[in-house]
Amino acid sequence: MTTVGHLINGQLVTEGTRSQDVFNPATGEISKQLDLASTKTVEQAIAAAQAAYPAWRNTPPLKRARVMFRFKELLEQNADRICQLVGEEHGKISHDAMGELQRGIENVEYACGAPELLKGEHSKNVGPNIDSWSEFQPLGVVAGITPFNFPVMVPLWMFPMAIVCGNCFVLKPSERDPSSTLFIAQLLQEAGLPDGVMNVVNGDKEAVDALLHDDRVKAVSFVGSTPIAEYIYSMASANGKRCQALGGAKNHAIVMPDADIDNAVNQLLGAAFGSSGERCMALSVAVAVGDAAGDALVATMKEAMQKLKVGPGTDSSNDFGPVITRQHQEKVVAYINSAEQQGATIVVDGRNPEVAGHENGYFVGGTLIDNVTPEMTSYQEEIFGPVLQVVRVKSMQQAMDLIDAHEYGNGTCIFTRDGEAARYFSDNIQVGMVGINVPLPVPVAYHSFGGWKRSLFGDLHAYGPDAVRFYTKRKTVTQRWPSAGVREGAEFSMPTMK
Amino acid sequence: MTTVGHLINGQLVTEGTRSQDVFNPATGEISKQLDLASTKTVEQAIAAAQAAYPAWRNTPPLKRARVMFRFKELLEQNADRICQLVGEEHGKISHDAMGELQRGIENVEYACGAPELLKGEHSKNVGPNIDSWSEFQPLGVVAGITPFNFPVMVPLWMFPMAIVCGNCFVLKPSERDPSSTLFIAQLLQEAGLPDGVMNVVNGDKEAVDALLHDDRVKAVSFVGSTPIAEYIYSMASANGKRCQALGGAKNHAIVMPDADIDNAVNQLLGAAFGSSGERCMALSVAVAVGDAAGDALVATMKEAMQKLKVGPGTDSSNDFGPVITRQHQEKVVAYINSAEQQGATIVVDGRNPEVAGHENGYFVGGTLIDNVTPEMTSYQEEIFGPVLQVVRVKSMQQAMDLIDAHEYGNGTCIFTRDGEAARYFSDNIQVGMVGINVPLPVPVAYHSFGGWKRSLFGDLHAYGPDAVRFYTKRKTVTQRWPSAGVREGAEFSMPTMK
Amino acid sequence: MTTVGHLINGQLVTEGTRSQDVFNPATGEISKQLDLASTKTVEQAIAAAQAAYPAWRNTPPLKRARVMFRFKELLEQNADRICQLVGEEHGKISHDAMGELQRGIENVEYACGAPELLKGEHSKNVGPNIDSWSEFQPLGVVAGITPFNFPVMVPLWMFPMAIVCGNCFVLKPSERDPSSTLFIAQLLQEAGLPDGVMNVVNGDKEAVDALLHDDRVKAVSFVGSTPIAEYIYSMASANGKRCQALGGAKNHAIVMPDADIDNAVNQLLGAAFGSSGERCMALSVAVAVGDAAGDALVATMKEAMQKLKVGPGTDSSNDFGPVITRQHQEKVVAYINSAEQQGATIVVDGRNPEVAGHENGYFVGGTLIDNVTPEMTSYQEEIFGPVLQVVRVKSMQQAMDLIDAHEYGNGTCIFTRDGEAARYFSDNIQVGMVGINVPLPVPVAYHSFGGWKRSLFGDLHAYGPDAVRFYTKRKTVTQRWPSAGVREGAEFSMPTMK
Amino acid sequence: MTTVGHLINGQLVTEGTRSQDVFNPATGEISKQLDLASTKTVEQAIAAAQAAYPAWRNTPPLKRARVMFRFKELLEQNADRICQLVGEEHGKISHDAMGELQRGIENVEYACGAPELLKGEHSKNVGPNIDSWSEFQPLGVVAGITPFNFPVMVPLWMFPMAIVCGNCFVLKPSERDPSSTLFIAQLLQEAGLPDGVMNVVNGDKEAVDALLHDDRVKAVSFVGSTPIAEYIYSMASANGKRCQALGGAKNHAIVMPDADIDNAVNQLLGAAFGSSGERCMALSVAVAVGDAAGDALVATMKEAMQKLKVGPGTDSSNDFGPVITRQHQEKVVAYINSAEQQGATIVVDGRNPEVAGHENGYFVGGTLIDNVTPEMTSYQEEIFGPVLQVVRVKSMQQAMDLIDAHEYGNGTCIFTRDGEAARYFSDNIQVGMVGINVPLPVPVAYHSFGGWKRSLFGDLHAYGPDAVRFYTKRKTVTQRWPSAGVREGAEFSMPTMK
Repeated sequence: MTTVGHLINGQLVTEGTRSQDVFNPATGEISKQLDLASTKTVEQAIAAAQAAYPAWRNTPPLKRARVMFRFKELLEQNADRICQLVGEEHGKISHDAMGELQRGIENVEYACGAPELLKGEHSKNVGPNIDSWSEFQPLGVVAGITPFNFPVMVPLWMFPMAIVCGNCFVLKPSERDPSSTLFIAQLLQEAGLPDGVMNVVNGDKEAVDALLHDDRVKAVSFVGSTPIAEYIYSMASANGKRCQALGGAKNHAIVMPDADIDNAVNQLLGAAFGSSGERCMALSVAVAVGDAAGDALVATMKEAMQKLKVGPGTDSSNDFGPVITRQHQEKVVAYINSAEQQGATIVVDGRNPEVAGHENGYFVGGTLIDNVTPEMTSYQEEIFGPVLQVVRVKSMQQAMDLIDAHEYGNGTCIFTRDGEAARYFSDNIQVGMVGINVPLPVPVAYHSFGGWKRSLFGDLHAYGPDAVRFYTKRKTVTQRWPSAGVREGAEFSMPTMK
Repeated sequence: MTTVGHLINGQLVTEGTRSQDVFNPATGEISKQLDLASTKTVEQAIAAAQAAYPAWRNTPPLKRARVMFRFKELLEQNADRICQLVGEEHGKISHDAMGELQRGIENVEYACGAPELLKGEHSKNVGPNIDSWSEFQPLGVVAGITPFNFPVMVPLWMFPMAIVCGNCFVLKPSERDPSSTLFIAQLLQEAGLPDGVMNVVNGDKEAVDALLHDDRVKAVSFVGSTPIAEYIYSMASANGKRCQALGGAKNHAIVMPDADIDNAVNQLLGAAFGSSGERCMALSVAVAVGDAAGDALVATMKEAMQKLKVGPGTDSSNDFGPVITRQHQEKVVAYINSAEQQGATIVVDGRNPEVAGHENGYFVGGTLIDNVTPEMTSYQEEIFGPVLQVVRVKSMQQAMDLIDAHEYGNGTCIFTRDGEAARYFSDNIQVGMVGINVPLPVPVAYHSFGGWKRSLFGDLHAYGPDAVRFYTKRKTVTQRWPSAGVREGAEFSMPTMK
Repeated sequence: MTTVGHLINGQLVTEGTRSQDVFNPATGEISKQLDLASTKTVEQAIAAAQAAYPAWRNTPPLKRARVMFRFKELLEQNADRICQLVGEEHGKISHDAMGELQRGIENVEYACGAPELLKGEHSKNVGPNIDSWSEFQPLGVVAGITPFNFPVMVPLWMFPMAIVCGNCFVLKPSERDPSSTLFIAQLLQEAGLPDGVMNVVNGDKEAVDALLHDDRVKAVSFVGSTPIAEYIYSMASANGKRCQALGGAKNHAIVMPDADIDNAVNQLLGAAFGSSGERCMALSVAVAVGDAAGDALVATMKEAMQKLKVGPGTDSSNDFGPVITRQHQEKVVAYINSAEQQGATIVVDGRNPEVAGHENGYFVGGTLIDNVTPEMTSYQEEIFGPVLQVVRVKSMQQAMDLIDAHEYGNGTCIFTRDGEAARYFSDNIQVGMVGINVPLPVPVAYHSFGGWKRSLFGDLHAYGPDAVRFYTKRKTVTQRWPSAGVREGAEFSMPTMK
Repeated sequence: MTTVGHLINGQLVTEGTRSQDVFNPATGEISKQLDLASTKTVEQAIAAAQAAYPAWRNTPPLKRARVMFRFKELLEQNADRICQLVGEEHGKISHDAMGELQRGIENVEYACGAPELLKGEHSKNVGPNIDSWSEFQPLGVVAGITPFNFPVMVPLWMFPMAIVCGNCFVLKPSERDPSSTLFIAQLLQEAGLPDGVMNVVNGDKEAVDALLHDDRVKAVSFVGSTPIAEYIYSMASANGKRCQALGGAKNHAIVMPDADIDNAVNQLLGAAFGSSGERCMALSVAVAVGDAAGDALVATMKEAMQKLKVGPGTDSSNDFGPVITRQHQEKVVAYINSAEQQGATIVVDGRNPEVAGHENGYFVGGTLIDNVTPEMTSYQEEIFGPVLQVVRVKSMQQAMDLIDAHEYGNGTCIFTRDGEAARYFSDNIQVGMVGINVPLPVPVAYHSFGGWKRSLFGDLHAYGPDAVRFYTKRKTVTQRWPSAGVREGAEFSMPTMK
């Protein structure tokens, strides 16, 4: 059985001390072993990054960008292989994996613009004959810790921008689906990156803590659940590192009475159930304003869900695949149970889906729950499964109050045709990423990704322009040249220096 | 005796529970009483700010900026009064106080450009007929905690930008010299700021902790010593606030063999002794490259220091005044003693200055110490007094290694006429603010202020462009308008909405 | 009788050779004499500007901005006097003059941000140890030629930004209402501008041609009619100057079937008749989509117009005043006549307004014309009077085709509540300034003003960010420092330069 | 014999009416026939571009950028073929052609960042609930007219940025060496560009005039000689197009007394003789400050030039190749003759170089002329050949006065080690592109290229950030949404639109 190891200083290595099973969630079978890095191995990765840093920092940004140009080509050429690795360990359908990869590549494309993005600010004559400019210099060694749900995309949110800014990187991917992450790191190596600039360590809490406590690591980017995000953020901050830690979400869509219901349902279908709802931007709550909208929404959605197909990722006619683990499958079902017990209406029930030939896979079918109220457990917590809940309210203001009262503030959306409603919503809602008739308002790679409230800890958002600021520090130089007589000198008094 | 209170919701109030003496450092006499805010009073200030927030947030940036235009006028009209208040409680000479005020006003001038500074990023067609833009929205209630050494300037680094970005502010000034800070807050009120947008609470650790633990406070800006900065930063971060905390410094100037020594001494004189060295950008260590440069530097500096005049701030012929407290005076003298004991040469000794008629003032004279080495206590710690230490090295690289090895990385400077040396230095030195023949490289108000290493905790620097990012959060909106038939409709099929 | 002269090198001068009458349009009486500058006088102004340039160019941007801060204060303090001068010679009502002044002041406020606006782009390591940056340097002497309809605002679009960027300025105001323009130039002088940086020459075509043919003038900004704009643009271009020349307009508002008609009429009233329609952004054509919208619009507008009051500017209860000259009054009336003759319906007829006590004033009353068609003269040409024409179409596309077919493309607007219609309109319409439910979409001072098609000749728009680019030229510096041995040298080998 | 035709609407076509010989300058032989486009053919190209425009304009910028990503790959894959085509018709050595191609590719790389570069400015609350933003929309059909000396690079300065901004392009390359230009246009087609977006018409003045007089062409970019640039600029401007026209140059290097002469000579060698001096950035005049610097410079340069090798481009050991035509060869020689006759000293004489086996090639050897004075014809005019002239002056100010007095202001350079001299020079010199110890200060692709004085006509420089502004026009939208009751409505009053 294959053992997945680490990429350190350009070499694939395994430590052989501790390991963990990697499962195929569509079959429930063990597919690989994951070597778990000890603190010592993590420190080797950091040391490799530290050693590679001086030369990489001094490499002109355009040359660094050209590695990213080649990396993009390699990602495109190896797209099928990458998606296959994602499918085997994460379970998502190939078209979904391809979508994930594509969004990841967009971050590489953005990184190709490094020479423009790294421009500093230059001021002539801040005083008489005094000039000043600000440069954005890299930090040194920086680290990323990434979740299972996007084993390709989320790492690509981080390391291309960090590296193109002149940093060296140590990545700790999810232990659930490590292979695709490791593979794209190898492609980056193949693209011409010097050894040691990019390193991958697989592991568990020991590896994470090693990163958090090592003084050579200057910054940490994290995506995962809110409790872990909070731990990472306070620990990294207390250790003097800069940190951005992205956590959980509960993304609401408001469906207004003037919305085109067919369009809204069409959009929500993918946003709620795509990737089994295991997305921090999954649209998991629909808030219908008025019972007319609510009734129409539920009826149309119920109808539409009849065509939803759950099954293994290898069959591209499926709409979504299994959830990530047996435990997670049970947790999702428990949330559905709790909603039922607390009085909600299970309109479409995905608790026991039949997936012929994959009886041991971790499948949950698309589930629609109506008459959900804010007190219910299933409303308050993030389910991270293919479950869409409908809350009914009497006005748009009520809908907005609901959203603002929730602890998370990642994404949200409104379905309306009215300019004023859309503007009021996007202006006032306490959520970082807002869609107007767009159910998954993931910012494009040239904007930045970040929630508000307890969905993100830190000042700066992920990828895009904010990533340039996160992965660099400002240095401001103020310069005055006193006369040395060289310029004004008459010929005879010139210093004879050569 | 005057009691200095708080500015809450546009009203001057005192609590009357606890108080503390405010001294005149030039005479050693108590000049005022400072009312110390309890947690309850701080919470009232926060509540006032919270209440003022919705309307202020919705006030167009241009209107907010116009308050700053009027504030600038009022600061200029009241300059003498402000400087007098600074002088009485801080002790600095009037021309120095005027310089401080001027640098503060520059931040108000920068804040007047808010409409330009707050522009978001707009992208057409991020997908077919989908647009996206990022807005920079205010945070809500934000707080500032400021040090004694710049009672006017450092608060002006913070609240004008915070407020013009749409936030409401609670400021906790230094308890040593609170009057000028309170006075400028009243001027801002007079400039037309709505009640509650700007609040001042005077106090001690109880007030600080109240700010750090209140969930309504979304961000904290701090300037002070490194241990406190670290406490503030980790506490604020653990409480989910964004935080920038600026701490201590040990700023070195490299004097190269090709430097114009007269010019260097002339520059260093003000940079080392101005404001009694109580500046986080004070130039406290001169590193001479080669003994020729070292000897020339020490001899010329010794000569120049004979004209230095220490005395009360009321006499504008003085070069600098007392230090802030009796305890601080003793601490500075102890550092000089330790240097002497550890083997350094006291070239000019300021330990017992005579200031006729001010025998009880907290004066320390200008002090020059040669042959200082990195092991000495006086080298390792921040003295914050009128003491210039000279370290001698054999090469520029040695000088740079010294600087990089120090825990602080606030400011630094090189004196040279050589383009290559200057470029190498400014590129590689691990310090956030770099001067080339400029001994106090404080960035102008339209750049940003921030050190590296243990001189600043946080991602974003103070004032300037970084302040816009620190005092706002990014919101990214993605918008698609489904057709409602309004545009394409033939006349007869138009919806009859009116 | 007062003679209005020129401001050259800080002095008011008159030449005394040729002069022209200045009229009060509300009474038809001559109020002043205008001294007409000969080529020689214009050349003196240019020479003064040229002489002042080197010192002004080297003045730090922040110091230049501070003159603008003071200028803003003086404009506000002298607002009544400025508006009185505008009223006497232009005829507009005091509240309208105050609005004009306010929009002008906003440009001064924007100019106060010069240090930020003039930042160049800085790139480290464009090659190994090679840095490059772009600076935006002033042009030298630049000129402005401004129209009668905004004697205060349009000059303020130009010279504050030009001057704060480091240029020296020669302004040729309209010969119809020169006094307010000259007065604000004197206020700028009083604000602390060095002599010669700002100059005003009054005159006619001789003065204009002198500016266009003098090699020392590096750029020309013009606002006026399209034929003159075209002449200025091709002449200035042929003479190697940069030029931006803003011309005429025919601004259409589309009124959609879903529009709130009361709101639309309310907005259009001011946009069509304010300042007697003598604005390049006046909304002079309403395009109603569907007869329902058309009928409602005409009926509601007719009703609303009954309250419109035309009369002298001295009575602030009036809505608008006279047009600028007897000839222009006759021209406006001729357009109304032609529309009537060509088949349009005169719904409200302003051809013979009674203005008691001002029988010789150049008044035209508010006029509403329905059933206008694209072939009519009154549709094809710019009327520049208080005349609103209604065109009726059957679809939004027809309305847009009409707008795109017109030779002008200055401003336009749509009234709708539909997000999709608004987005399609603003994206596709061939007009430079677009309003969505905003009838006068004049960009704020921190954006830039400019029409498309034959409404503007040149690349860059007026005021705002574009003005920074128009009034500066890019200089790109590429720098590498070869080693001179200063940095690397061991102590003994240091060059002994001192 | 091959006939080189046109690329119109994705098809290679020839007209067959008029044609012209294309020569191999290394042999003097005719190598191809060039089909000369008539006005009609040019109009077909414009029509194709016009037809392709609506769809291309609406293609998301990221999709447009991806064509450029693929174009970069194809240019790299076909580098040898491109360089061979350049060599055959232009004559430059393969390593020089490769350098040209590389600089061209850098512009394609910059164009890949289009989504970032096209971001507009977004302002919330320019008034109460009124938002405003500026978009940068494409112009439509734009044209480029390019010179013989960089048949690959100069076209790549233009069309990638124009096209990625959403425009359609018609290129008229040089008639001397059209094949490589046509070939790269075909590669762009192969990269996935829709037919008609990129078109190439080969031809002479008839084709140029057709472009200048067609109303559908909205902008013209030109690079060539100053008299033609001036013609193009005034003609295009008079026809209402935007235009940037880059002309001739006479680039001076100041050699200061403190310069490292070996380094300066080393740099100047390539800058003066590379590509036979047929570069608008060729360094053709060295100004030595002081006779010591002058003598050292001439002696060292003379020595260094002994190794210079002129010959056919097919032999990569050659340093440079022939000039472009027989007539141009004679013109260069005539300039050398005139210098000699007017009193200059011919130090190294390249008038009759022996190139064995290529006796009919248009070769001129590297020529060094000392004691050149400003009155000489060879100083006043652009030679565009492998000729370096040395002027001797007594001070740096004299050197700068010389440069400022010349009609051209393209590039310049100073050799010094002194920070102050470099800063004074770069600040004050009236030249658009300045090198400090960099003899060919061609801005990198992410800055912009442009000279001052009579070296460039227009406001905006070529490529880089300025190209975004040149190839787009600003549209400013101001938006307010009046309430339609949708948001505030209670449930019962909702409009029943569905």
